[in-house]
Amino acid sequence: MGDRAMICEVGPRDGLQMTRTFVSTERKLAWCRAEVAAGIPDIEVTSFVPPHVIPQFADAAAVAAGAKDIPGLRAGALVPNLKGAVLALDAGLARINYVLSASEEHNRSNVRRSTAESLEDFRRIIAERDARGLKGKVAIGSGIATSFGCTIQGHVPEERAPEIAAALVEAGASEIMVADTVGYAGPAQVRRIMAAVLRVVGDVPVSAHFHDTRGLGLANVTAAVEVGIRRFDASLAGLGGCPFAPGATGNINTEDCAFLLERLGLETGIDIDALVRLREEVETWLPGERFSGAVARAGLPKTFRRAA
Amino acid sequence: MGDRAMICEVGPRDGLQMTRTFVSTERKLAWCRAEVAAGIPDIEVTSFVPPHVIPQFADAAAVAAGAKDIPGLRAGALVPNLKGAVLALDAGLARINYVLSASEEHNRSNVRRSTAESLEDFRRIIAERDARGLKGKVAIGSGIATSFGCTIQGHVPEERAPEIAAALVEAGASEIMVADTVGYAGPAQVRRIMAAVLRVVGDVPVSAHFHDTRGLGLANVTAAVEVGIRRFDASLAGLGGCPFAPGATGNINTEDCAFLLERLGLETGIDIDALVRLREEVETWLPGERFSGAVARAGLPKTFRRAA
Repeated sequence: MGDRAMICEVGPRDGLQMTRTFVSTERKLAWCRAEVAAGIPDIEVTSFVPPHVIPQFADAAAVAAGAKDIPGLRAGALVPNLKGAVLALDAGLARINYVLSASEEHNRSNVRRSTAESLEDFRRIIAERDARGLKGKVAIGSGIATSFGCTIQGHVPEERAPEIAAALVEAGASEIMVADTVGYAGPAQVRRIMAAVLRVVGDVPVSAHFHDTRGLGLANVTAAVEVGIRRFDASLAGLGGCPFAPGATGNINTEDCAFLLERLGLETGIDIDALVRLREEVETWLPGERFSGAVARAGLPKTFRRAA
Repeated sequence: MGDRAMICEVGPRDGLQMTRTFVSTERKLAWCRAEVAAGIPDIEVTSFVPPHVIPQFADAAAVAAGAKDIPGLRAGALVPNLKGAVLALDAGLARINYVLSASEEHNRSNVRRSTAESLEDFRRIIAERDARGLKGKVAIGSGIATSFGCTIQGHVPEERAPEIAAALVEAGASEIMVADTVGYAGPAQVRRIMAAVLRVVGDVPVSAHFHDTRGLGLANVTAAVEVGIRRFDASLAGLGGCPFAPGATGNINTEDCAFLLERLGLETGIDIDALVRLREEVETWLPGERFSGAVARAGLPKTFRRAA
């Protein structure tokens, strides 16, 4: 194929949202610095949620401030609503990621409102940014969670993700992240839904956010690559999950995803060996958490061409 | 797609060849019985290797004899050479699987001869069967190990697998199993090599044998399905590995592979819930072994259509 693919590291956000140990601001920033050095400049560094909901992100403003000083880092933060977006804008981040759910029931569990109401909230976030004169300076993307099915609602119609993607783009989204929040997706479904989303978004970039809950994470990445997706969220050591998805531990693993993308002939610019060293360090910060990943255990193939 | 796919269970052979605990003949046969009941009639039940090499298979003849009494079971056995094939024919098995390596160095490590010499040995096995008047009664297939790369030799030219497959078919092989013995394969390479093999084998069935060593096992299954492969080796709970592939633990997992194939729209006839119950039982037989698998941990999706 010869073209490029990129990974957005979501470990410091999605990966940490359910861990038992609080990771210090200093370590979170060290993590980001090491990822940038390993060739991953795109990182979701924190989440602007109330500290009583997820204590891990009580230092969101400090992380955002520190992230601005890391050369080369393109830091983003997740915001669940307008209030979070205001905090992220106050913190001076140039990239904000909102999220709503394709599943109405998941959306209600997550933020106690309908998907349509969450879409209204997205419009208010865009308006808030524009009112601050930050249009063109702050990129605001949105994830579409449970696009492939939902542990609460079950089936989610396949047209939901493209319909919501079109509405988000119309509202001014700078990126669309299509998410298999609960690990229900399969490769054939991924090809259909991702292709349908690509058809309605115009020039707006589309990324995929897969979980490996039922083992199909990297098969789904392969399927998404086939229909033209080149941006993937992944989490170092496969850390993370969704608090409303029982058993849904496990974002796809950054190291293994990078290995797959390279094996597909895509250039990622990622130093996988450096990521493996980083995960060894992060593992010492998070006693008792599940660190998954095949490349870290087995090593890269003898035949693997390492990035220059 | 709407068509069918099948899994050959290799757990009782590949899965057990490196385990520390000897599993009794009775339990091996119980395992086979439960797999047949779960919708997997094709099982590699044992290996005819010298007991001092792999003590686990000291009961190969007894397992083969017992397997003949299990209704619906299509039992096969692995044989590394003519001597093993003679034992398997003596045991009355209707299906024998030979194996040689696409990597010369792997072949030498495995059986101390060149790949060409191993091909000669295959011809002698076919001749032995025919001399016994068993042509048309005993099927003899061959695996092509390290078709995607080798931990010893490194790179294996992509034309090796199709060249060897053509020679095996010419020699009378009833099935070709293309194997990623060490977990080096990637989906794009899988598409190329499997398609090339399919082009040279005529009507002879081709199956794929993948390891999940570096996390790409199910992505590789997806890629093989795309080019027309519908037969896959897999091991319950991902048990198994290759003694000459350091860190190469992990055949692809039967339960997860069945889930993937069903999610791809292929009918497998497999009862995944029954497999999960079986693996729980097998786990009690093998203390200290690594049991992998995502579906067993997370459960099937709420939306999953179970086999009737």
